[in-house]
Amino acid sequence: MKRILIKIAYDGTNFHGWQKQKGMRTVQDEIEKAVLHAFKIQSEVFASGRTDAGVHALGQMAHFDIYDTCPTKKIKTILNRVLPPDIQILSAKRVDSNFHARFDAKAKTYLYRICTGEKNCFLANRFLFVNDLNLQKLKEISEIFVGKHNFKGFCCKETSATNFIREIYSINITNKRKNIDIEITGNGFLMNMVRILVGSMLDYSLGKLSKDKIINALINGDRSLSGRTLPPQALYLKNVKY
Amino acid sequence: MKRILIKIAYDGTNFHGWQKQKGMRTVQDEIEKAVLHAFKIQSEVFASGRTDAGVHALGQMAHFDIYDTCPTKKIKTILNRVLPPDIQILSAKRVDSNFHARFDAKAKTYLYRICTGEKNCFLANRFLFVNDLNLQKLKEISEIFVGKHNFKGFCCKETSATNFIREIYSINITNKRKNIDIEITGNGFLMNMVRILVGSMLDYSLGKLSKDKIINALINGDRSLSGRTLPPQALYLKNVKY
Repeated sequence: MKRILIKIAYDGTNFHGWQKQKGMRTVQDEIEKAVLHAFKIQSEVFASGRTDAGVHALGQMAHFDIYDTCPTKKIKTILNRVLPPDIQILSAKRVDSNFHARFDAKAKTYLYRICTGEKNCFLANRFLFVNDLNLQKLKEISEIFVGKHNFKGFCCKETSATNFIREIYSINITNKRKNIDIEITGNGFLMNMVRILVGSMLDYSLGKLSKDKIINALINGDRSLSGRTLPPQALYLKNVKY
Repeated sequence: MKRILIKIAYDGTNFHGWQKQKGMRTVQDEIEKAVLHAFKIQSEVFASGRTDAGVHALGQMAHFDIYDTCPTKKIKTILNRVLPPDIQILSAKRVDSNFHARFDAKAKTYLYRICTGEKNCFLANRFLFVNDLNLQKLKEISEIFVGKHNFKGFCCKETSATNFIREIYSINITNKRKNIDIEITGNGFLMNMVRILVGSMLDYSLGKLSKDKIINALINGDRSLSGRTLPPQALYLKNVKY
């Protein structure tokens, strides 16, 4: 047996997220079915982490084990042929048999895409459309989150997490014409954390939430003080670093 | 009361087509709900024709009646605010009270989009991906269909139509890098007709279907002689002419 690490892109629109759930169409389930069909082996596929329903991936990472006889170089092509059109394997390589896509991840980058332009129905599942936005205030508030913090106030209440300490390495905000891309890199993220962080930043930039409240949410871990949870369809798991 | 004609774009991915059906999410139903919500009137919205589940529109046309007091200039903005993000009103204007979006339509243009490039999960609901294609043969066979014909052999068997005569005014095939756009303009189209026409053209260009068989399907109205019905997600209702 050998362990394979794949880099995956998917359009999350028609998936109930990454993780297998009975009766639901999920990315993990589709890839496991493709591996079984292509390589005749029932192998569990372990991702760097779950993504929620509707969330996209530009560079999700996952590992699984297959027989030594399968040629590693052909895995990408073979899987892409078998997988549905909304999942795409970007690369496949052999890794050490101790490697784990989740536990060995050192950093992850998420991208949240905002558009301040006119409504465009063909981008509805790609961007969050907002009427207007104060870019300067968005950049200003983002600096508060960088560093090691207790992010309990920026986590969905349904989480099973018990440790809420995470470190955010950087938040980069870029602006091209009507598009604003927010890239957040950290050592790990809690449930809905990126959507609540960006929601708080957006609420602040729109004058709906004060800086004091956000700082309080960060200090006291109080979810009722932070901003709204933004919708999933503008969120992309961009990159995982090992 | 006054009659309003709207031009609509929609991403068909998450709709069961245009026409209202109980328990299904449809474009007609969403627009009727938006008109009711915005203008407090239960008004039926009549399109130039149905589109199937998954089919997109770049320029669907539809009419409905509202009270004279509603300012026509604001209809587009008001509806866009109320409608879900995957439906977009492009324009709205007042028309004569005898005008009918379906019966007054003189010509329609459909677009079918093919990509011969590598799989791209974010374009899965926008293009048909094919490995390869003979563009010269595609153009050559398209000429057979132009003109007035009985298209029974290029119509879904579940149709309720009794008259199968339609006139195709033009088929334009353009090629930019890996994208091939097929635009078909005609006075009207039968159920699944564009998807079967392009399917037959594609099958011919791939050497899977002979020209004789296609000509026979056109002469004898025999659906078993024509090509496959292509999937809906690469089809766009582009334009309706009055």
